[in-house]
Amino acid sequence: MTGNADLDPVLSHIDETLPQALERLMALMRIPSVSTDPAYAGHCDKAADWLVEDLQSLGMNASKRRTPGHPMVVGHADGTGPHLLFYGHYDVQPVDPLELWHRDPFDPALEDGPDGKVIRGRGAADDKGQLMTFVEACRAWIAVHGRLPARISILFEGEEESGSPSLVPFMRDNAGELKADIALICDTGMFDRQTPAVTTMLRGLLGEELTITGPDKDLHSGMFGGAAMNPIRVLADIIASLRDETGRITLPGFYDGVPELSDTVRKQWEALGFDAEAFLGAVGLSHPAGEQDRSALEMLWSRPTCEINGIGGGYQGDGFKTVLPSQATAKISFRLVGDQDPLKIRETFRAHVRAMLPPDCSVAFTDHGASPASRMAIDHPAFEQARVALSDEWPRPAAFVGSGGSIPIAGHFKRILGMDSMLIGFGRDDDQIHSPNEKYDLESFHKGVRSWARVLAAISAKG
Amino acid sequence: MTGNADLDPVLSHIDETLPQALERLMALMRIPSVSTDPAYAGHCDKAADWLVEDLQSLGMNASKRRTPGHPMVVGHADGTGPHLLFYGHYDVQPVDPLELWHRDPFDPALEDGPDGKVIRGRGAADDKGQLMTFVEACRAWIAVHGRLPARISILFEGEEESGSPSLVPFMRDNAGELKADIALICDTGMFDRQTPAVTTMLRGLLGEELTITGPDKDLHSGMFGGAAMNPIRVLADIIASLRDETGRITLPGFYDGVPELSDTVRKQWEALGFDAEAFLGAVGLSHPAGEQDRSALEMLWSRPTCEINGIGGGYQGDGFKTVLPSQATAKISFRLVGDQDPLKIRETFRAHVRAMLPPDCSVAFTDHGASPASRMAIDHPAFEQARVALSDEWPRPAAFVGSGGSIPIAGHFKRILGMDSMLIGFGRDDDQIHSPNEKYDLESFHKGVRSWARVLAAISAKG
Repeated sequence: MTGNADLDPVLSHIDETLPQALERLMALMRIPSVSTDPAYAGHCDKAADWLVEDLQSLGMNASKRRTPGHPMVVGHADGTGPHLLFYGHYDVQPVDPLELWHRDPFDPALEDGPDGKVIRGRGAADDKGQLMTFVEACRAWIAVHGRLPARISILFEGEEESGSPSLVPFMRDNAGELKADIALICDTGMFDRQTPAVTTMLRGLLGEELTITGPDKDLHSGMFGGAAMNPIRVLADIIASLRDETGRITLPGFYDGVPELSDTVRKQWEALGFDAEAFLGAVGLSHPAGEQDRSALEMLWSRPTCEINGIGGGYQGDGFKTVLPSQATAKISFRLVGDQDPLKIRETFRAHVRAMLPPDCSVAFTDHGASPASRMAIDHPAFEQARVALSDEWPRPAAFVGSGGSIPIAGHFKRILGMDSMLIGFGRDDDQIHSPNEKYDLESFHKGVRSWARVLAAISAKG
Repeated sequence: MTGNADLDPVLSHIDETLPQALERLMALMRIPSVSTDPAYAGHCDKAADWLVEDLQSLGMNASKRRTPGHPMVVGHADGTGPHLLFYGHYDVQPVDPLELWHRDPFDPALEDGPDGKVIRGRGAADDKGQLMTFVEACRAWIAVHGRLPARISILFEGEEESGSPSLVPFMRDNAGELKADIALICDTGMFDRQTPAVTTMLRGLLGEELTITGPDKDLHSGMFGGAAMNPIRVLADIIASLRDETGRITLPGFYDGVPELSDTVRKQWEALGFDAEAFLGAVGLSHPAGEQDRSALEMLWSRPTCEINGIGGGYQGDGFKTVLPSQATAKISFRLVGDQDPLKIRETFRAHVRAMLPPDCSVAFTDHGASPASRMAIDHPAFEQARVALSDEWPRPAAFVGSGGSIPIAGHFKRILGMDSMLIGFGRDDDQIHSPNEKYDLESFHKGVRSWARVLAAISAKG
């Protein structure tokens, strides 16, 4: 049994050893573990080795586990009380456009931000800083008490930013080892600077890439322009057709399985006082751009989307080249909610594209993953225990929130291991994850470690 | 006065010395005079030197003339009869993608093609091979008769493939020296393999680049998707709006000044028996893609177009990145005909784009040039003289044709020097200019030299 008498010295130890914890995080951030680019495979391996060593230094039974892609890191520590599985990912997003970073993305540093000190560098928030909050909480428990307050397993993957191809097979092959009473995931954010959050709704994600081919080679637009079909034009028509003037996505049956908010949830969200103007203002915008009859919070948490994540074709260099290109490509993602069926939507999308192809054009699709939305089991007692523990740490009480992002892992844990997940994270809206100059607030890191120490105490005390 | 008695030995001399002429062309082609890339400036200079020496070897008073960019080559040869100014350009297109060439683009060779021998290498057709047809015709006249049949000036520029920034100032500064009775330009093609052509209509060109900015940084599409405006979506809407379902361009007033073909021209073009199926089939297409109530030849020669030459935004690398980008860019060109006013169309285009911008988006435009269409003075007697001379050389009678491409030089000669231009060239549709594996048919080169020898005789005999 753990109580405040056990917890307080742990929190003090965390405060006293923050500089060393920060140095460990930066050591991990210096390893450029970009998972999408094969050139960085060696660095991903090195990051896994670093984590194995770090977990072993806590006395955990930790090892690097081979997969067809980047390795998993698995660690176990015995303990009494409930069995918790913590998940995080050590891989990071690519850094381009590099010229927009004001420092080397893999040479992290503490910098002064408008709201206090920030840890700057790729992976600071997504997800190295977040996963280390949990590791450091465990370290403090062991340093003070010589033991953890629960039986803890850890799973770190290195492919989260590239679609997690090895995750489901690994989970299936190691189900007995990984199954715990509940999974803890640290890859989400706070509701606002003062309000911690337990994320209870996650959008799913369907990723599609399409390449339209017209002429079989690049042509001179003077010689052929007017008579030869231009694949960029076809692609633009297709993209424009995906949404009507009210912001509604036009694919037939797209909204099948999209639930309306219950009155309770709607009222709870309204009570959060979400400041859409400030949220958008922080990135230079002012108008919620989705379905015009929905609130900004619904657009972000409970409504599906269609985003064009990338487009390319023809000449993109300096100056001008009068080419009529052979091909044009777009990467498109759909965020899904409720019971929307990703595979059915993929089929509908592809049929829609094919139906819009003019004669002389062909299309090739690349599948970039499909995961349904997740809704958490908030009646599990750990949710209320965690809510109270987080509320003790932060200025304002913790909220149960939705998340626009897609974290398929929660769905996998449920389907494959029959295990519920609880998502707690300390990211902030201005962390610039996936963008240049990513950062993690020093406060997020410090109070994040303290939060996990509290959550461990709370769950194990009553687990 | 020159007649067949003068011409026949010149033609024989051309036939006998073809191998040497070919070796000279290849020597010029070995100089990688890529004008768009500053790294090749020294090579452009070397190509100019080579040409000066070659013109001097003909007894011409030739010199390299400095400009703020790559140098001009100017040569003069006295003679009786009309004063002709010949124009060509010694610079060539970049060679990328280099891996698609089956030989070093700057190590030219004679190869066997499906329709006979071809000269393979960058610049073979555009424009080194073409400009040397004229130089070699002059060389043969001088070798046989010790003199040229007309007073001849030559102007070679080295910036045609990079927008000719120095051309107009040079023309203005040297107007007295360059003004002649008529300009001859060799940078166009045959109508088909048997039919030589005098190009009498050239489309103009308006080049625009637009960059749409939405959020002030790249965002995570999970965190912001749905509520934040995506500039790729805005750009796609704009591109899709430029054309209606019949292929007509929708900008208000766009067709002002677009003439209908006269019955005479329409009949002449119909008589050419243009094989649209073969033309499009050669590049993997089958359906003329422009205004659906127009013939393919009209789409190519006498109708204006709107082409997207390049588009880019968001993540374009391997795999997938769920970014919601800050910016999206397109390069768009309009080919113009008749009396369409490029500056007015630029204004209309920009106003249309601005009117389509949603709140929160801004646009920046880059001007990539604006030149009106050119129509040649086909009532000038040289046109009929040349038509007859070309018809004597080739299996089928010469045609007066249009050209989809834009060659602003003819417009400059008219506006600045008050001089008409006659465009005669021997390029073929499959020359792959601006593409990998550029070639010039050996027949084009050989009969091209012979053609100019005939044209010189014809114009000077009656000039």
